[in-house]
Amino acid sequence: MARIAYVNGRYVDHALASVHIEDRGYQFSDGIYEYIAFYNGKLLDADAHFKRLERSLNELEIGLPVAPAALGIIIRELIERNAREDGGLYIQVTRGVAKRDHVFPKNVRPALVMTICGAKTPKPNEFADGVKVITAPDRRWGRRDIKSVSLLANIMAKQEAARQKVREALLVREDGTINEGSASNAFIVSKAGTLLTHPLDENILGGITRDVVLKLARKAGISAEEKAFSISDAKNAAEAFITSTSINVLPVVKIDDKLVGGGKVGEVTKKLGELYNAHILKQTGKVI
Amino acid sequence: MARIAYVNGRYVDHALASVHIEDRGYQFSDGIYEYIAFYNGKLLDADAHFKRLERSLNELEIGLPVAPAALGIIIRELIERNAREDGGLYIQVTRGVAKRDHVFPKNVRPALVMTICGAKTPKPNEFADGVKVITAPDRRWGRRDIKSVSLLANIMAKQEAARQKVREALLVREDGTINEGSASNAFIVSKAGTLLTHPLDENILGGITRDVVLKLARKAGISAEEKAFSISDAKNAAEAFITSTSINVLPVVKIDDKLVGGGKVGEVTKKLGELYNAHILKQTGKVI
Repeated sequence: MARIAYVNGRYVDHALASVHIEDRGYQFSDGIYEYIAFYNGKLLDADAHFKRLERSLNELEIGLPVAPAALGIIIRELIERNAREDGGLYIQVTRGVAKRDHVFPKNVRPALVMTICGAKTPKPNEFADGVKVITAPDRRWGRRDIKSVSLLANIMAKQEAARQKVREALLVREDGTINEGSASNAFIVSKAGTLLTHPLDENILGGITRDVVLKLARKAGISAEEKAFSISDAKNAAEAFITSTSINVLPVVKIDDKLVGGGKVGEVTKKLGELYNAHILKQTGKVI
Repeated sequence: MARIAYVNGRYVDHALASVHIEDRGYQFSDGIYEYIAFYNGKLLDADAHFKRLERSLNELEIGLPVAPAALGIIIRELIERNAREDGGLYIQVTRGVAKRDHVFPKNVRPALVMTICGAKTPKPNEFADGVKVITAPDRRWGRRDIKSVSLLANIMAKQEAARQKVREALLVREDGTINEGSASNAFIVSKAGTLLTHPLDENILGGITRDVVLKLARKAGISAEEKAFSISDAKNAAEAFITSTSINVLPVVKIDDKLVGGGKVGEVTKKLGELYNAHILKQTGKVI
């Protein structure tokens, strides 16, 4: 089955899918994206993702490329054409194509590109045994709350993690506060049993999985606070984990050279992983 | 005459020039660029631009897409095909096309895109009367010394300047230090007659025009220091100007609501503008 992409109104062979060299996404990283998981052909937490997509576009003053209802129809068609049950939908919207000039062009039509890929779920042993992460300076731009394609600092941090053969880099402010991972949100469980994650502000991207996990925790009676924590807090926590649309709830058992929770996946993390899997099952019928 | 672009080994009609949707420049702003002015078909300060291009690529661990000698030949051919005497050469190099993943792909070939455009020189009255600028928080990522296409913070600042109907936004750190403009370097002349511009570090992009102007100033016996200055220093300076490959030496006569130098173009600025024009004349034979 050929891989099919959607590019500005057309369904095209993925290998041939292209955008103009003066698309502002290419020249200025002037665009945003979303990545939505789907199981049994059903998008997970679609409304939350679409809401965030609209917010990102609003913050950059980019219009919607197509009406929301049309977008839903295009996505269903795209998933069908790719003949995948489970996988990921990547949506990118840029300001559009215009003669290169820093100032926003007028009367330009936003560009819309969508692709489908296989599920990026971690391996079973990563969930069972947990993963290692490093900490790295957060060198990203000031508006981390916008899900933009201005990701150079993110990929450099992720590359450093890969070089050190670990799963993720936790990005740290100058004062030692952990913001989030290069492509995930960071959580810890304090020794007192409280779940902590950075509050929503310009320092972090408000992850959809982050939000779901907070709701699931509170519903299950786990004390949860949206409160910043330091590298030291994280290294001395009872448990740690990271979340994202592709990794779900992924236990962290080592930060830099320090084992967390004695190097074992903690009970709260396990519980939240199970609750998140139940959340997927409920929405899509998929057993993880 | 058709506008011709160079894209990954081919000279193509600009209107049809495209890159793959999974070019990492599009998805991650994983690439760098240069903009070089040319007059009478001759590139201005080409060696300095190529040196900076190589440095940017090295910092991102991206290889050269073609050998330097070949690049020179391609550029000459491109300028000829576009039949322009004076204009600008835009060069973009990205890490290349790969399945979307934050980690750097292996064995990928860097992508090379080049376009030619008309000269972007400011209008004569802007040189004669000076321009207005605003100050804005510097929200860019941490490695401003790399000429990357991760320019979202730059274009947002430039757009704010355009909204306020001024030429440029000077980007300011939290402590009030001016780094540079959104697409230019910033200079002031103190009341004591010393030329000041931010030193080379991760806070600024080392502009080629900045470097040339510093050399010309020193050669002309003007005292010049590479030293950071604050918003207040700039507003109370005797003179101010901004530099870049497209604006040359552009006098600034108003910063936010404060006239600089009584709102008149200063003598040192005028002199440096003349020296810079002489620099262009000497290299390319072009009278500005």
